[in-house]
Amino acid sequence: MTTPQHSPRAFFPAENGELLIGGMPVSRLAARVGQTPFYVYDHAALAARVAALRAVLPDTLHLHYAIKANPMPAVVGALAQLVDGLDVASGRELRVALDTGMTPEEISFAGPGKSAGELEQAVAAGVLINIESAREVRLLAEIQARTGWQARVAVRVNPDFDLKSSGMKMGGGPKQFGVDAEAVPALLAEIKQQQLGFEGFHLFAGSQNLRAEAIAEAQRKSFELCLRLAQDAPTPVKSLNLGGGFGIPYFPGEQALDLAPIGANLAELVAQASTRLPGAHLTIELGRYLVGEAGVYICRVLDRKVSRGHTYLITDGGLHHHLSASGNFGQVIRKNYPVLVANRMDREADENVSVVGPLCTPLDLLADRMNLPHAEPGDLIAVLQSGAYGFSASPRDFLSHPQPLEVLV
Amino acid sequence: MTTPQHSPRAFFPAENGELLIGGMPVSRLAARVGQTPFYVYDHAALAARVAALRAVLPDTLHLHYAIKANPMPAVVGALAQLVDGLDVASGRELRVALDTGMTPEEISFAGPGKSAGELEQAVAAGVLINIESAREVRLLAEIQARTGWQARVAVRVNPDFDLKSSGMKMGGGPKQFGVDAEAVPALLAEIKQQQLGFEGFHLFAGSQNLRAEAIAEAQRKSFELCLRLAQDAPTPVKSLNLGGGFGIPYFPGEQALDLAPIGANLAELVAQASTRLPGAHLTIELGRYLVGEAGVYICRVLDRKVSRGHTYLITDGGLHHHLSASGNFGQVIRKNYPVLVANRMDREADENVSVVGPLCTPLDLLADRMNLPHAEPGDLIAVLQSGAYGFSASPRDFLSHPQPLEVLV
Repeated sequence: MTTPQHSPRAFFPAENGELLIGGMPVSRLAARVGQTPFYVYDHAALAARVAALRAVLPDTLHLHYAIKANPMPAVVGALAQLVDGLDVASGRELRVALDTGMTPEEISFAGPGKSAGELEQAVAAGVLINIESAREVRLLAEIQARTGWQARVAVRVNPDFDLKSSGMKMGGGPKQFGVDAEAVPALLAEIKQQQLGFEGFHLFAGSQNLRAEAIAEAQRKSFELCLRLAQDAPTPVKSLNLGGGFGIPYFPGEQALDLAPIGANLAELVAQASTRLPGAHLTIELGRYLVGEAGVYICRVLDRKVSRGHTYLITDGGLHHHLSASGNFGQVIRKNYPVLVANRMDREADENVSVVGPLCTPLDLLADRMNLPHAEPGDLIAVLQSGAYGFSASPRDFLSHPQPLEVLV
Repeated sequence: MTTPQHSPRAFFPAENGELLIGGMPVSRLAARVGQTPFYVYDHAALAARVAALRAVLPDTLHLHYAIKANPMPAVVGALAQLVDGLDVASGRELRVALDTGMTPEEISFAGPGKSAGELEQAVAAGVLINIESAREVRLLAEIQARTGWQARVAVRVNPDFDLKSSGMKMGGGPKQFGVDAEAVPALLAEIKQQQLGFEGFHLFAGSQNLRAEAIAEAQRKSFELCLRLAQDAPTPVKSLNLGGGFGIPYFPGEQALDLAPIGANLAELVAQASTRLPGAHLTIELGRYLVGEAGVYICRVLDRKVSRGHTYLITDGGLHHHLSASGNFGQVIRKNYPVLVANRMDREADENVSVVGPLCTPLDLLADRMNLPHAEPGDLIAVLQSGAYGFSASPRDFLSHPQPLEVLV
């Protein structure tokens, strides 16, 4: 019987016992950063991931980066050079997106609770606003009438299906996201009445999915739903955003997503669109899939303690910096992220240990009873798959420990 | 059949349909704060909670506040005037504690991953350091020898029992916290050898417990364990910290903790200590129990949306400000915190709704299918029991929305 293993690393080779990140041995990288803990994101890994996608995606498909996954300005700036557009979820994310120099034409703004101020910010910037409710139509009409700036809008649709096997279901049944598919025709009439600048639809059926066929099926259904809804559109559809949902393997037994069938499916949809939605371009927006595997969280062993036969490696990092890796962010059953002793890569995993942080809570756990090479104080622990929903999604003030840094190499 | 209800509010009456906080109607309070969302902590509620404790606790017992529950400097400053001491878990918390003017004699520092810098900071300040490993003895001896500043130390013990029915077990079995009880004699010999200033013991068996008898039993066992360990102490025990663990009712069906039996039990232990540990004082340290019910999180309804028959109140606050209330911080099964429409207190709960935040994730849920009075955009939502592990324990940069404020009234 074999125990499920973590999927092989997509990036970051090892050399002379050290994990290489951005081509630099991790112990030197830590010295160059100047402190532990830190998050490091690898520019070459971002570029390689985008290239792998481009290789299988149809040429005319637009590839967007959803900033919510990792809003570090350097990362967003690097990705802005690699992708066709950026998706934002708040006014602050919009400012980060505009700072990259990305054309507002290729920035879109979604979110179920946009404030009046954020809507005005988005209209002023000239970005595409994914409308999520009738209230947003009224507010945008008021802003457009008062300022004379044309509001560019798409309708975010709550579909009448959901993405199967998804880590997080975001469509189907009642939802706070988007406008129920059956209510879209009335909303389109209101958009026409208010003379907002209609451009298309946005559908987002789920996230963190590792089954290519489920993603392809959701894309096909989204496309068909859009074709039906387009019949009531005030003007021809110019843009159809099919969302994302591409997962990465976090836990033992999970396999990397197979891109080929997704690429083939999208090629078919792009071909169909050329006749059934002439003049429209198709977009997918990816967050986690672009940045998740390109980032590593690094912390240092402070103490090594044996309590009643079990060994704890106590580090200077933990839950407060990396909530997801601790298993406390939406997970029902805690599982270990891939964790390494990053400067002992040439040693066998000869010990069963728990890697914990400095907090006074048993929730502060980076690895629970994992087989790792013997580690001592001063050694470096790496948590892989940490480029998305890490730094920005963690309670960094919890117990008032020092903040981690973020670097792009 | 009756549905379990939330426990009655300990504080905050309603008047003319408005929740009163610090005696002020919530809608005026929101205007005085200048924005939503915000956390508000009530000085009178803090004082009332401490007074209720003092009424049942023996006079000579020391009552400490554990800053980790809520490190807002104004809150810590207010509590410093009400309690006998402060407990800190990091160098930053130590600075906040010292800023209150609390004497270093009555400040103690615990945590399984103290850095060398933090240990030196604590020695320089003259606070009591709860030693959690042999490494800390070595580091403190080095600091003491180099600087000539006497290190004041207690031993944090990982007991050989745990706190029954605890929300979070922190003792018994292998743990990253403290020193296994059976290893304490050897550590005490090392403390003596290194001439550190030994003062006593610290035991912390668990947290968020609502069963008085379980807490009393853990205190009795902690006391007895300390008596045994004291036989190997290099000098007489001056201080015995029995920890905390006092819970507050969060979820439907939970009842407030009965303080009387805990007070009676502690009175008995204090009496025993006068003969069995002469010259020692007993301490309890409470975090959540002092501040949890004195704080409220307030956000505003932005949109009201009906999706396939279910009503969503979309607010400007959510998971990013209040992770625990969203059910994503250590909870296995999500339950609703007590949530109110704070400016509609005179209306019947005539609707079943979900209260959500502005984030693009279904995890962003403040109330799931809860019966509330009809609310409209502009109305104020209050989440009670929010004084502890709220602001500082939330991923406030997640999706880059505006930060909440904190005020003390």
